[in-house]
Amino acid sequence: MSTPRPTILKIGGSVITDKDEELAARTAVINRLSEEIQEAGIQDLIVVHGGGSFGHPLAQKYGIKEGFKEEAQKIGFSETHHIMTVLNGLFMDSLIWHNIPAVSITPSSCVITENGRIKSFEDTALRTLLKMGFLPVLYGDAVLDTKLGFTILSGDQLVATLASQFDAKRIVIGVDVDGLYDSDPKANKAAKMLTHLTLGELKKLHSGLGKSTTRDVTGGMFGKVSELLFAIEQGIPVTIVNATEPNLVCKALKGDNVKSTVIEKE
Amino acid sequence: MSTPRPTILKIGGSVITDKDEELAARTAVINRLSEEIQEAGIQDLIVVHGGGSFGHPLAQKYGIKEGFKEEAQKIGFSETHHIMTVLNGLFMDSLIWHNIPAVSITPSSCVITENGRIKSFEDTALRTLLKMGFLPVLYGDAVLDTKLGFTILSGDQLVATLASQFDAKRIVIGVDVDGLYDSDPKANKAAKMLTHLTLGELKKLHSGLGKSTTRDVTGGMFGKVSELLFAIEQGIPVTIVNATEPNLVCKALKGDNVKSTVIEKE
Repeated sequence: MSTPRPTILKIGGSVITDKDEELAARTAVINRLSEEIQEAGIQDLIVVHGGGSFGHPLAQKYGIKEGFKEEAQKIGFSETHHIMTVLNGLFMDSLIWHNIPAVSITPSSCVITENGRIKSFEDTALRTLLKMGFLPVLYGDAVLDTKLGFTILSGDQLVATLASQFDAKRIVIGVDVDGLYDSDPKANKAAKMLTHLTLGELKKLHSGLGKSTTRDVTGGMFGKVSELLFAIEQGIPVTIVNATEPNLVCKALKGDNVKSTVIEKE
Repeated sequence: MSTPRPTILKIGGSVITDKDEELAARTAVINRLSEEIQEAGIQDLIVVHGGGSFGHPLAQKYGIKEGFKEEAQKIGFSETHHIMTVLNGLFMDSLIWHNIPAVSITPSSCVITENGRIKSFEDTALRTLLKMGFLPVLYGDAVLDTKLGFTILSGDQLVATLASQFDAKRIVIGVDVDGLYDSDPKANKAAKMLTHLTLGELKKLHSGLGKSTTRDVTGGMFGKVSELLFAIEQGIPVTIVNATEPNLVCKALKGDNVKSTVIEKE
């Protein structure tokens, strides 16, 4: 039996946690998203979620992303990984409660990076889960790195690698804004949302942004999207929706018309 | 840098949970064991724990060990794996709280079995964690199986495989009895504890037991030990101690003289 081409759903850490407060999970949002995933009822789905106020503050406190420099960081690596399993546990609880046969895959148990980029991904379990009709769930995690000792693997890099490795049908990215804007919608009320972009237009936008400022003026969204360029180049379309608004993730999963930014190769 | 020869500590599910009640973790015992592991302060340690009243009732309810037979079992596989991550999370919480750089390795993310026996174990992360001086923690888990679809991987089988794969220095088995008896100490007050056994004596005992009854008259302990025969044959000594009694695990880890059953090749 060949591996089915999956849809990959990324749920941002800022959707399922309150980024302004440490360890503040939005369990009501997690529950609503589980319901939406159940209602969409699509086959061959992989879910990846971010770390938000669970993983990020600890990773930052101990400089985990920058790699192993001193013994004192080791407990920080342990804490960062552990707290991500706690957030993941809340999501798994909710998915299973909604009768979804979801199974978590622990990135740090099967992924090794090299200078922060995925070097090997032992995906036999994930592939088998997909074939059997389970919903595999992964997350941004503290992982081991051949050069740095350890580092942070972002959910976005995971999504891009999975999409490419499994030749995904499509990618749905659930964030806390309506889509990709030409400037930061949280800072600039006149920011214009882009509903459809080709890869060429996206690259042009990127170089334009690059000229105007070194900061990511789209409010961090472009950084996320640039991680996905490789997958888009492979012909995998990306839909960005606001996952803090009810039903948009469900509709996007079903392929319904929905307020979003769609990025396609051509 | 070559992988150090680790000591492997198994903590039985009946030690850290109350087997007579569902989902009853003995958090005070978990805390005491974390303290003992910290106090023993030995390098190159791997911890494996069982499922007790977390994993077993769910695994049994859905017939997970017997393999995939019908769709309705799938949510059972999800639940069994998830509940084991919850028990493991309690242990990780406690170890990290005691300032031990412990990192959980999820068996179902990196182990595949064939007819219930480990077929592949992608151990790069585990090996790297050991080399870096972390404490890897694994547990009995619901795993995928090439023939059965899925099954249960016992902590005992994990211990034996790890011991062999990493050429362990020694194995310490923490259980809820004082050691290996010539009959079930919970049923028979006259049961005699065996303090030292060679592999030959163990096998003789086994064949004796086999003649007397088909049930495991040692109260389940022989079943656990027989899983370790291969490791003992490789020259890895096994020490069985009562982990429900304070300080015995700590002393056994340090190699101190302690009430126990020691099984050696010769």
